[in-house]
Amino acid sequence: MDIKLKSKLSKITTFIFDVDGVFTDATLLVGEDDVQRIFNVRDGYAVQIAVKSGYRMAVISGGKQKSIATRLSGLGIHDIFLSVGTDQKLPVFQKYISERELEEEEVLFIGDDIPDYLLMKSTKVLACCPADATEEVKSISDYISPVSGGNGAVRDVIELVMKAQGKWMKIF
Amino acid sequence: MDIKLKSKLSKITTFIFDVDGVFTDATLLVGEDDVQRIFNVRDGYAVQIAVKSGYRMAVISGGKQKSIATRLSGLGIHDIFLSVGTDQKLPVFQKYISERELEEEEVLFIGDDIPDYLLMKSTKVLACCPADATEEVKSISDYISPVSGGNGAVRDVIELVMKAQGKWMKIF
Amino acid sequence: MDIKLKSKLSKITTFIFDVDGVFTDATLLVGEDDVQRIFNVRDGYAVQIAVKSGYRMAVISGGKQKSIATRLSGLGIHDIFLSVGTDQKLPVFQKYISERELEEEEVLFIGDDIPDYLLMKSTKVLACCPADATEEVKSISDYISPVSGGNGAVRDVIELVMKAQGKWMKIF
Amino acid sequence: MDIKLKSKLSKITTFIFDVDGVFTDATLLVGEDDVQRIFNVRDGYAVQIAVKSGYRMAVISGGKQKSIATRLSGLGIHDIFLSVGTDQKLPVFQKYISERELEEEEVLFIGDDIPDYLLMKSTKVLACCPADATEEVKSISDYISPVSGGNGAVRDVIELVMKAQGKWMKIF
Repeated sequence: MDIKLKSKLSKITTFIFDVDGVFTDATLLVGEDDVQRIFNVRDGYAVQIAVKSGYRMAVISGGKQKSIATRLSGLGIHDIFLSVGTDQKLPVFQKYISERELEEEEVLFIGDDIPDYLLMKSTKVLACCPADATEEVKSISDYISPVSGGNGAVRDVIELVMKAQGKWMKIF
Repeated sequence: MDIKLKSKLSKITTFIFDVDGVFTDATLLVGEDDVQRIFNVRDGYAVQIAVKSGYRMAVISGGKQKSIATRLSGLGIHDIFLSVGTDQKLPVFQKYISERELEEEEVLFIGDDIPDYLLMKSTKVLACCPADATEEVKSISDYISPVSGGNGAVRDVIELVMKAQGKWMKIF
Repeated sequence: MDIKLKSKLSKITTFIFDVDGVFTDATLLVGEDDVQRIFNVRDGYAVQIAVKSGYRMAVISGGKQKSIATRLSGLGIHDIFLSVGTDQKLPVFQKYISERELEEEEVLFIGDDIPDYLLMKSTKVLACCPADATEEVKSISDYISPVSGGNGAVRDVIELVMKAQGKWMKIF
Repeated sequence: MDIKLKSKLSKITTFIFDVDGVFTDATLLVGEDDVQRIFNVRDGYAVQIAVKSGYRMAVISGGKQKSIATRLSGLGIHDIFLSVGTDQKLPVFQKYISERELEEEEVLFIGDDIPDYLLMKSTKVLACCPADATEEVKSISDYISPVSGGNGAVRDVIELVMKAQGKWMKIF
């Protein structure tokens, strides 16, 4: 691992996630009365462990469905911003870290597509993306996971940080 | 890119999409009371951007479920023709472009299978198909996307046109 | 194509299908109140064309859900036997062809797993299976499709027969 | 097959399964009112055959949904422990084998991730995992299936035991 990335990883206290294409493979199951998403249980374990280990976790998504919040709050993520339009992701992020008195450098953000681009490009977060992110997002990422969205990309970045900080597999 | 394709791309003002096998991987999730389709969020972003950029968008599908219209109108596509049988696709297309006073050459049509064949073969649209279209459809396509249906084929053809016209990543 | 297979294909008037693992990839989506299956639209077109072309079509499945019949009757298959246990597949088949006065040799049967084994092994049907059928079933098949279940195996066997008989792409 | 594994396989009378990542590919389909899982029909046949052949079968899962029990009891598994937290999997296992008067060595356990780790590491069960289990679980497994979760890993371990004991394809 390159030494610059290692140094950045050591500062992370907070994970902020996009949802579609990150927690999922970017698909939506669309029926008459409901839209479903396909989450990954192994991502879920990593989130639960990270929460128990004291990391702060938040979600900023353009998704509208309450089921996103139901799933993610069940894993221990309570700062969940939904229905956030492309042009609102950066301001929502800025308000959040300001209220929590966080430095940009202590935040890992993982996104995959256009709505995440500006936030990832114009802040000092550790910008991460899944293996199957769009080219534009890959080109501005500090770390491109070898794992695609919905197949463990969330787990991969959580393990990456926790291993760099010597915290993975310590509490179980 | 071959020069003939480039010239055709420069004329496109309008996208007309088949749904199953184009916006989806041709699967249907069939349960007791509902049929679901698996749409792709990254296709969705591209549609929204293309609509905002002024492209005309329409859908001609044999699919019957209202959920198709709910999903696609949410992305900004309002000309949606459902339950269109194989022998009606061409007449529905002809009536549509006639009412809108469009030339065939300014329309990109993307289809994947038998019901799209006649329309793609007998008109002057820019005929496109996903990587996993049937052989018959591939054989009459001007452009075969490297991406399969439901995995970003819609996004690929939208980026193709918008990049050829210098409009991609201009508005965000 | 080997000459023996070609000769067998020329006699086919009737398709009999297993469902799970043939029309689907052998998965079941299991929720609180419903079980869903993932059908393929391209299989569906081929079934509709074969029905219109005069082929007889039937289904013998261990599956219990009415949604199987809803989907397949919508495609034009009306002889649908559901909830058929492993030891009943052969007798149900025998009763069916007897009532319809069919010879075993004019029937193509496609199955993928244990419950189909006895029928495929002990009759003179043209025994077919998807690429991902179990080894036991593959070992007794006259034709192993290069396509897996749910990804177009049904379409592949229908095209195989109709092309061998010069009927594919004649009616559309 | 190595001689030590062969010897262990000969003693197995009981299968205990984790669910997510073993019977499924670790995905959850999350909608407004329900969570669905994707089971595999070919796994199901193997379970039914193993039950009829006299093997004892149980499930210990962190999953909460009743639909797990509905699906698995339909296959003949009646000892189903749901909502079992990571720190309760080992005690639930110990209580179960004690009540049934089983030796650890006669139990095959298949798990894929962190919640299964302690049980697999600290007991004398035949520890198995799917091809796509996490590295930690793979590192303590006696047998790593070549098949991933939800794609037939359950079937693979059942066939492995039944073939080693000369019981596969004997009753059908």
